[in-house]
Amino acid sequence: MTTATHPAQAQYALFLQRGLKLDMSRGKPSPEQLDLSNDLLDALPGFSAADGADARNDGLGVGLPEARALFGSLLDVPSAQVVVDSSASLSLMHDVIVFALLNGVPGGQPWVGQQSVFLCPVPGYDRHFSICEARGIKMINVPLNDDGPDMEVVERLVANDASIKGMWCVPKYSNPSGAVYSDQVVRRLAAMQTAAPDFRLMWDDAYRFHHLTDEHVRVAEVIGACARAGNPDRAIVFASTSKVSWAGSGIAALASSPANIAWWTRHAGIRSIGPDKINQLRHVRLLKDSATVEALMMRHAALLKPKFDAVLAQFGAHLGDVPGVSWTVPKGGYFIDLITPPGAARKTIALAREAGITLTPAGAAYPYGVDPDDSHIRIAPSFPSLPEITQAAEGIALALKVAVAG
Amino acid sequence: MTTATHPAQAQYALFLQRGLKLDMSRGKPSPEQLDLSNDLLDALPGFSAADGADARNDGLGVGLPEARALFGSLLDVPSAQVVVDSSASLSLMHDVIVFALLNGVPGGQPWVGQQSVFLCPVPGYDRHFSICEARGIKMINVPLNDDGPDMEVVERLVANDASIKGMWCVPKYSNPSGAVYSDQVVRRLAAMQTAAPDFRLMWDDAYRFHHLTDEHVRVAEVIGACARAGNPDRAIVFASTSKVSWAGSGIAALASSPANIAWWTRHAGIRSIGPDKINQLRHVRLLKDSATVEALMMRHAALLKPKFDAVLAQFGAHLGDVPGVSWTVPKGGYFIDLITPPGAARKTIALAREAGITLTPAGAAYPYGVDPDDSHIRIAPSFPSLPEITQAAEGIALALKVAVAG
Repeated sequence: MTTATHPAQAQYALFLQRGLKLDMSRGKPSPEQLDLSNDLLDALPGFSAADGADARNDGLGVGLPEARALFGSLLDVPSAQVVVDSSASLSLMHDVIVFALLNGVPGGQPWVGQQSVFLCPVPGYDRHFSICEARGIKMINVPLNDDGPDMEVVERLVANDASIKGMWCVPKYSNPSGAVYSDQVVRRLAAMQTAAPDFRLMWDDAYRFHHLTDEHVRVAEVIGACARAGNPDRAIVFASTSKVSWAGSGIAALASSPANIAWWTRHAGIRSIGPDKINQLRHVRLLKDSATVEALMMRHAALLKPKFDAVLAQFGAHLGDVPGVSWTVPKGGYFIDLITPPGAARKTIALAREAGITLTPAGAAYPYGVDPDDSHIRIAPSFPSLPEITQAAEGIALALKVAVAG
Repeated sequence: MTTATHPAQAQYALFLQRGLKLDMSRGKPSPEQLDLSNDLLDALPGFSAADGADARNDGLGVGLPEARALFGSLLDVPSAQVVVDSSASLSLMHDVIVFALLNGVPGGQPWVGQQSVFLCPVPGYDRHFSICEARGIKMINVPLNDDGPDMEVVERLVANDASIKGMWCVPKYSNPSGAVYSDQVVRRLAAMQTAAPDFRLMWDDAYRFHHLTDEHVRVAEVIGACARAGNPDRAIVFASTSKVSWAGSGIAALASSPANIAWWTRHAGIRSIGPDKINQLRHVRLLKDSATVEALMMRHAALLKPKFDAVLAQFGAHLGDVPGVSWTVPKGGYFIDLITPPGAARKTIALAREAGITLTPAGAAYPYGVDPDDSHIRIAPSFPSLPEITQAAEGIALALKVAVAG
């Protein structure tokens, strides 16, 4: 005698027998992607910077001139408004918030003595939210649409509440939904009236070069937009080579108004005598210019695209007819957002885990780890091999079917 | 007709005609010292860490196992109690203070909500004091003797004032005086009663391997001393390769109790997904073990010692008979402390500047840049060439003679 089971449960039970073991919790590049930058291992011909400085020694807190020029051209910003650091952009964001908390940004008092709140378009990047939570900044969710944050909501909130000091923005191929900010959204963010005079847009341009299709989406340049709108110090732009060269050994840049750059340089100079300029030399040699970066990113895309396609194909095959289930089809970036019926994300992730697939925890894309609808699952296809990711996507789909059936 | 001048003024006037131009304001290593580590430029044979991790990717916030083992052996601390980071030790110190301000250390509340004070043995390192000043920690001077801080003063202050949260310590070849903490001072620092339960020793072991004589001074290991005295979480030790390999591209370590290491790892993990582990691989390959580091440091000493000797010879020749003038004769480290009669340091530095010699500003070795007696001049012989430093020392000596004569 057997108990009658839902067909999805039978499929899931069969999948369990494969004994898969796969960690898909983070958007790490694959070894094959890292191999694309192995020329970083080559010996440098020397250690003199363009201005003659000895890149081995202390100093040059703003970064090497040639590294600033490279990021200036990549970000469409004058190189005088760019500083290049050795660490990852996440660290630069963290330190901007620390300096703002303890010292205040230009035109403001230290945030730490006041109630300080950030707007968080959701779903969003968990590490942004962790910085706020760990350092005592309150977070308010705002809806993220396909063309950026819901500007009606944003404008109303910032106009009336002086405790709202900032907002996280991933303007292109956003993590995890793949949203791309429209020109109109950028204009409105640049121009909106804020009750706080020291309001800042934390503009994490993490996926600026990370296209997955031939359509290389462009987002309006925000620093100039803010300046034209009379809010020159509003935007602080972050970028890095983390998913261009080597995730753990890249270089990162911060770009902003002259006043913000002077402020950053002063405060970062308390923390450090200067960045790792040898690694900047290595990167300038590898990445050269915009065209070289673009060509490298197409090689990344060639490795990534089949993995995204495999996930989308599995989802289409298994989930196409499941009511209330949908997913994003990003034009770039590192993630797919799998949207479940309300209340099914946590259960799906638990079932996937039983099948050997570790996913980003449910709720991670929301402040405080709380997805109010329990309906978002972040899929990170980059690290596993193509056969692995294909199996994993199938397993996730089956887990979701069981979750909604049960 | 000529105006009669003091002989020192005549000598100084002659010196002015040499038209020297020399920046001695910072203790940077010379190009010849940096050359000692040029093997860092060599191609690495690969990028796999001892545990098989891909050193190019994200992760391993505590550092590579082999880098932790290296620093564990260098610092006489179990490697589980060491984290290795990519940046300089100054940044680790800064971040400890930031995390303490915003989050509190184990056993304490955030320092930012309270009056927070650090004891500063003087003369000391200006960048330590800048961190406190910039981030809002009040500083109190305590006298630094040849064997460490005046413990009568320290013990009385910390026992009675719960706002005293920490103390800067450079235990060996201290900057700028070359003081070395005696075993008794280490024991008393480890065991003293502090009114603040969350008091911390910021133990900057910056010159641990930086001997100038054959006497390789040893200082008692402080983490164990604190544990034995019942204060296991009191000391946080910082070290780096900044003046071992390349000043701007080294690796740094933080060592402490298991509770402090867990605390650090949690908070540093909010800021960064992991350090530059490729540079850790490079350093492990270059520095290997204690014996290799010791041999490398002897080559540094061979370059540095003649420069220190040249300064001491000039001071002896020109200042030996000037009342109220003395100087330290360090057994290691990067500095000589030239002690002038009260009120003469600032004037000497100004006169040296007129002769083309830029020195560290007067007062820099004191909190808030205020040397109450205006009597300390930090001499940094490392960067200039031997002929340059010989001339500079003569110029400084002549400037001081003019300052005290006039």
